[in-house]
Amino acid sequence: MRLARYELEGQVKIGAVEGESIAQLSSRIGHLGNDMIQLIERWPELRDHAERLRGKVDCRVSDVTFLAPVERPGKLWGIGLNYKDHIEESGGAIPEDQTWFAMANTTVTGPFGDIELPRVSTELDYEAELVFVVGARVRYATAAQARDAIFGYCVGNDVSVRDWQFRTGQFSIGKAFDTHAPYGPWIVTADEIDPLALPIRSFVNGELRQQSSTRHLLFGPVQQVEHLSKVMTLEPGDVFFTGTPGGVGAAMKPPKYLEVGDQVRVEIDGIGHIENTVTKG
Amino acid sequence: MRLARYELEGQVKIGAVEGESIAQLSSRIGHLGNDMIQLIERWPELRDHAERLRGKVDCRVSDVTFLAPVERPGKLWGIGLNYKDHIEESGGAIPEDQTWFAMANTTVTGPFGDIELPRVSTELDYEAELVFVVGARVRYATAAQARDAIFGYCVGNDVSVRDWQFRTGQFSIGKAFDTHAPYGPWIVTADEIDPLALPIRSFVNGELRQQSSTRHLLFGPVQQVEHLSKVMTLEPGDVFFTGTPGGVGAAMKPPKYLEVGDQVRVEIDGIGHIENTVTKG
Repeated sequence: MRLARYELEGQVKIGAVEGESIAQLSSRIGHLGNDMIQLIERWPELRDHAERLRGKVDCRVSDVTFLAPVERPGKLWGIGLNYKDHIEESGGAIPEDQTWFAMANTTVTGPFGDIELPRVSTELDYEAELVFVVGARVRYATAAQARDAIFGYCVGNDVSVRDWQFRTGQFSIGKAFDTHAPYGPWIVTADEIDPLALPIRSFVNGELRQQSSTRHLLFGPVQQVEHLSKVMTLEPGDVFFTGTPGGVGAAMKPPKYLEVGDQVRVEIDGIGHIENTVTKG
Repeated sequence: MRLARYELEGQVKIGAVEGESIAQLSSRIGHLGNDMIQLIERWPELRDHAERLRGKVDCRVSDVTFLAPVERPGKLWGIGLNYKDHIEESGGAIPEDQTWFAMANTTVTGPFGDIELPRVSTELDYEAELVFVVGARVRYATAAQARDAIFGYCVGNDVSVRDWQFRTGQFSIGKAFDTHAPYGPWIVTADEIDPLALPIRSFVNGELRQQSSTRHLLFGPVQQVEHLSKVMTLEPGDVFFTGTPGGVGAAMKPPKYLEVGDQVRVEIDGIGHIENTVTKG
């Protein structure tokens, strides 16, 4: 199922997207409101009800503004150096270990929201990424538990401020700028997708910049959950960015950073696309 | 004022601590409940009411279990390399820039809660730190706005898993383990304290390990808010750890890491102390 948070006539709702139509779930499922984390937590109990509503036509995709599926994830982390070609363009060796950093909760923006060019940077860059959303509380997960803990997948852009990412060695601050984690346009539930067989692309103003497949991920989502859950309890609604393939602006010769007015589009076959405009911060 | 979240007879409450007594605010201030973030957000409006209740004796400090003042901060970040003697013992040069990393929201534990020794580590360490809690939404704050945006101060232990902190170069994962951000025991509001004149100490099983003063901070809380707000919108209830002085276990010769059963105490004059026991994770 494709579960979306969207705004329609000034109200925020949750619905199931099927082709061009949306079945509203918010008012039909008791006490759900517009809280995606609650839907995720109660999914085992609500799933059948949602399945029965799927295919109803309450509005069209073109009528609504899609929002980030989880507006304020409890955790929002990203992995670096997770596609071979991106590691090569970054000048590093293939890592034996997963390289994680955290973003701030205020980085989240909608799948078609604006991305701010910060006043304090001249090196704004894009990173096309598969994103997963956690569906269960897990710690010390086995591979099977890790697989079951992934609720679904989205398209994301791990927007990166390179001059801040590299100035102290700690990536997190360069990944923490407001509006720099657009993702969506909905969550495709994990049962509908093979996360290791998805073509992924990004474009800046229509020019193809990144083109790869999630089969080139060094560490897949299940391994990521296993690794992270050695450290922290993952919880429903936590959001993780799974790494970017080669082709980022910083690796171009000469580097090509994003400028005000640029349109950045990320597509993942089987999920959908997001598209964001760079604005003055 | 000293604002605490605590448990009394199975219920979580918010109160104002005065000496050995606590005036309960939860049920006396409309719709406050046990939500510290709400108290912080509404502080300009609620402050006078809270001041009038201050000094009432609803219970004694010895009757309650103190909890982390904000249970799930929207943001929870820490700065590294921020006292000269700690930089020296870590073998680095004085940084020109602030070195920030993020923790996970699940690291929070109470001021007297247990700290887990992770199954996957043999290098568990303590870091005594002054902590500040944000009181207002700010971005691109001036020094004056930054000062006004600090709601108050706590005592914290930025518990660190050294073998994970250094294995990828990204500190965040080594600071993200469950239960590794004990802080409290309450928030001392910013009007009652000079954050740059506070003696700070830590002890392991009664042995003095760290002893310094916040006057040795390279970047003080106001500079930290200025810096962070260039990147992200800070919001009420966000929690920041301000760095640790020299004397951590990793820098001892030979290193002395924490073991199950150890008692770790952090004290800051003018605020109070926290004390945590290391347990098996």
